Amino acid sequence: MNSKKTNDWLKSREDYKSSKNAELLYDEIKKASVSALSKAITLVESKNKNDISQANILIQKILSESNEGLRIGITGVPGVGKSTFIESFVLYLSSIGKKVAVLTIDPTSSRTKGSILGDKTRMNKLVGDKNVFIRPTSSGLALGGVNAHTRDAIILCEAFGFDIIIVETVGVGQSETEVFEMTDFFLLLMLAGAGDELQGIKRGIMEMADCIAITKSDGDNILNSKKAVQAYKNALHLFPPKENNWIPQVLKCSAYENENIDKIWEIICGFENQQKLNGEFNKNRTRQNLLWFKSSINYLLESRFLGNAEIQQEIKNYENFISEGKISPLVAANEIMDKVFNKQF
Amino acid sequence: MNSKKTNDWLKSREDYKSSKNAELLYDEIKKASVSALSKAITLVESKNKNDISQANILIQKILSESNEGLRIGITGVPGVGKSTFIESFVLYLSSIGKKVAVLTIDPTSSRTKGSILGDKTRMNKLVGDKNVFIRPTSSGLALGGVNAHTRDAIILCEAFGFDIIIVETVGVGQSETEVFEMTDFFLLLMLAGAGDELQGIKRGIMEMADCIAITKSDGDNILNSKKAVQAYKNALHLFPPKENNWIPQVLKCSAYENENIDKIWEIICGFENQQKLNGEFNKNRTRQNLLWFKSSINYLLESRFLGNAEIQQEIKNYENFISEGKISPLVAANEIMDKVFNKQF
Repeated sequence: MNSKKTNDWLKSREDYKSSKNAELLYDEIKKASVSALSKAITLVESKNKNDISQANILIQKILSESNEGLRIGITGVPGVGKSTFIESFVLYLSSIGKKVAVLTIDPTSSRTKGSILGDKTRMNKLVGDKNVFIRPTSSGLALGGVNAHTRDAIILCEAFGFDIIIVETVGVGQSETEVFEMTDFFLLLMLAGAGDELQGIKRGIMEMADCIAITKSDGDNILNSKKAVQAYKNALHLFPPKENNWIPQVLKCSAYENENIDKIWEIICGFENQQKLNGEFNKNRTRQNLLWFKSSINYLLESRFLGNAEIQQEIKNYENFISEGKISPLVAANEIMDKVFNKQF
Repeated sequence: MNSKKTNDWLKSREDYKSSKNAELLYDEIKKASVSALSKAITLVESKNKNDISQANILIQKILSESNEGLRIGITGVPGVGKSTFIESFVLYLSSIGKKVAVLTIDPTSSRTKGSILGDKTRMNKLVGDKNVFIRPTSSGLALGGVNAHTRDAIILCEAFGFDIIIVETVGVGQSETEVFEMTDFFLLLMLAGAGDELQGIKRGIMEMADCIAITKSDGDNILNSKKAVQAYKNALHLFPPKENNWIPQVLKCSAYENENIDKIWEIICGFENQQKLNGEFNKNRTRQNLLWFKSSINYLLESRFLGNAEIQQEIKNYENFISEGKISPLVAANEIMDKVFNKQF
C-alpha cells in the first residue's frame, strides 16, 4: 500500500468506526454511493457490539421511510444454470430501466474465502452495469443469522433505490425456506429430464414456488423441456391451492437464446398486481416481519449469551468439572443460567 | 375419591410441594419406591421454578454417587415390531435376574394424552413384573427438552437400582440422534423385504447402529430375513470403521419364536466388556455429558427467557409495533435483548 492509499484507508476506517457512522452511511447511501451500501451491509453483518448498535440506528432510520422494492427469491440445484439465468434476467431488467440488486446466499462458503470474487466473475456480463449491484451475503453458522443479515441487506438495497432485489440461494437445504420467508415472489428453476429426486428438490420447496421455470430449453433439450412443463403443471395441481389465491405458473426458458426471460418478468408483474389488489402482498410482509422478529430473538439470545467472554470462561470451567465427573451437565447449565437471569427476574 | 384417599392424595401433594421434596424423594427412591421414582421423573420434567431447583438438588445428589447402569437405545420405524421385541427382550433380561427400566420417547404425543396407558398396554406382558419399570417421557416441543428430561430419567432409574435402562424412540427423525447421544449401545430394528427408503431409515441412523436386528424372522419371512442380514452386513462394510473399534453386528431375530433374543444380549455384553477394557466406554460418557451440557444451556436459555412473563408481554407489545410497521423486527429484537443483558454485561 502506498502512503496515499494508506491514509485513505485509515480515514475510511476512522469514518467507519466513528459514532456518526450510521448517519454518515445513511447520507451516502441516499446519494447512491455503492461503496457506502457495501460498507453498510458489512456493518449489519458485524458481530461487534458498537457495529450492531450503529446498524440498528441505520436500519431503524431506513425502515421509518417507505422504500419500495420487489423481493424475488430464486433457487435451484447446482447445475440448473442459475447464474446464467440470473445474468440474462437481470440484463433484461436493466434494459427496461430497472435497478436490480442481487444478493447471493452461499451457506457453504464464508465471506473471506473468495466467494465475492467468485460470484462476480460468475455473472461477468453484469459487472460494470450501473443499474446492477451484486453482493454475496455471508450466512454464518446460525440459522437466524442468515435471516437477520440478508433481510437487512435487502432493506439497505431498497433504501439505495433498487427497484428489484433478487435473493439467490445455492443449495438444497434450509436456506430455501429462509429465502422464501424474506421475499415476495419465489422462482424455482428446474432441469428437464432429471427427476425431482435427482435434483434433490423436496415437495416442500415445490409447494413454495410461485413460478417454476424449466431452464436450458434450447437445442436438443426443447422437447424434454416441453414434457417437463406439462409434468410440473400436473404435479402442481396436486398441491392444495395457495391461501393468497395465486396459481403457480410453469414455463420453459433459455438464458442462452433469451427465450421467455421477458415472460417470467410478466408473470412476476402479474403476481405483484394481483397480490397488491387483494391485500395479500402486505399481509405476507407483516407475517414475514413477525417471523423475522422471532428468529432475531433466538439468534441474538444465543449469540449475545455465548459470545460473552465471562460466560465463555464459565462454560469452560464447568466443562472441566463435567469431564471430571464433579457436576451434572444439567445442574451446571442451571447454575450458569442462575448467574445470568436470577438477579433480574 | 373417598376421604381416606383424598387425605393421602393431599398429603402426597404436600410432600411433593415441600422444600424437603428432593431429600424425601431421594430417600424413597433409595428404598426402591416405584411411586417415588415416578414422582421424581415428573419433577425433572416440570417447568415450575421451584420444581426445577428441587430437581437439580436431586440430580446433583444422585450424580455424586456412582450408580452403574447400562443404557441401551432401541429404534426402528413403526411396524418393525418394536414393542413386541422390547417385550420379549425385557422378559428375557428379567428372567436372568436383571432389573430393567424402559423409557419411551414419543415426540408426537404429549404426556396427558393417554400415551402412558397406551404404552403400558402395548407391552402388557411386562406389567406386574417387579424387575421392570416402563415410563413414557414427554418430549415437549423443544429439541433440548427431550435430552434434558430423558437424561434425568435415566439417571433416576440408575439411582433406583436398575441394571439396564432401555430408551425407546418411536419415530424416524431427530430423536434417534438424541437417543444415540444418551445411550451406550444403539440397537436398530429393521424389517426384511422393505427397502431402506420404505423404512425411512437414513444412512446417518445406520451409521450410528452398534447392532442391526432384522425383526419378524419367522414363518414365511425367514428366507427374506437371511437375505436382509447379508445385505446389511455388506452395507455396513461401506461405512468407515467406528472410532471405538466396535464392529457393528447384524442378525435376525423373532420375538414371536424367541429366536436370538439372548444372542442380542450376548452381543451387548461383548460390547460393554470391550468398550470398558479399551477405555472408550467412559470416553463416550464424558463426550455425551459435554453435549448434554451444551444442549441444556440452549434449552434453558430459550425456556427461561421466553417463559418470563415480563418478556412475553414485551414481545407482544413489539409484535404490535411491528405489525403496524413502526419498528424493524431486528431493532425490536435488539431492544429486548438490551433490556435483559445490558445491565449485567
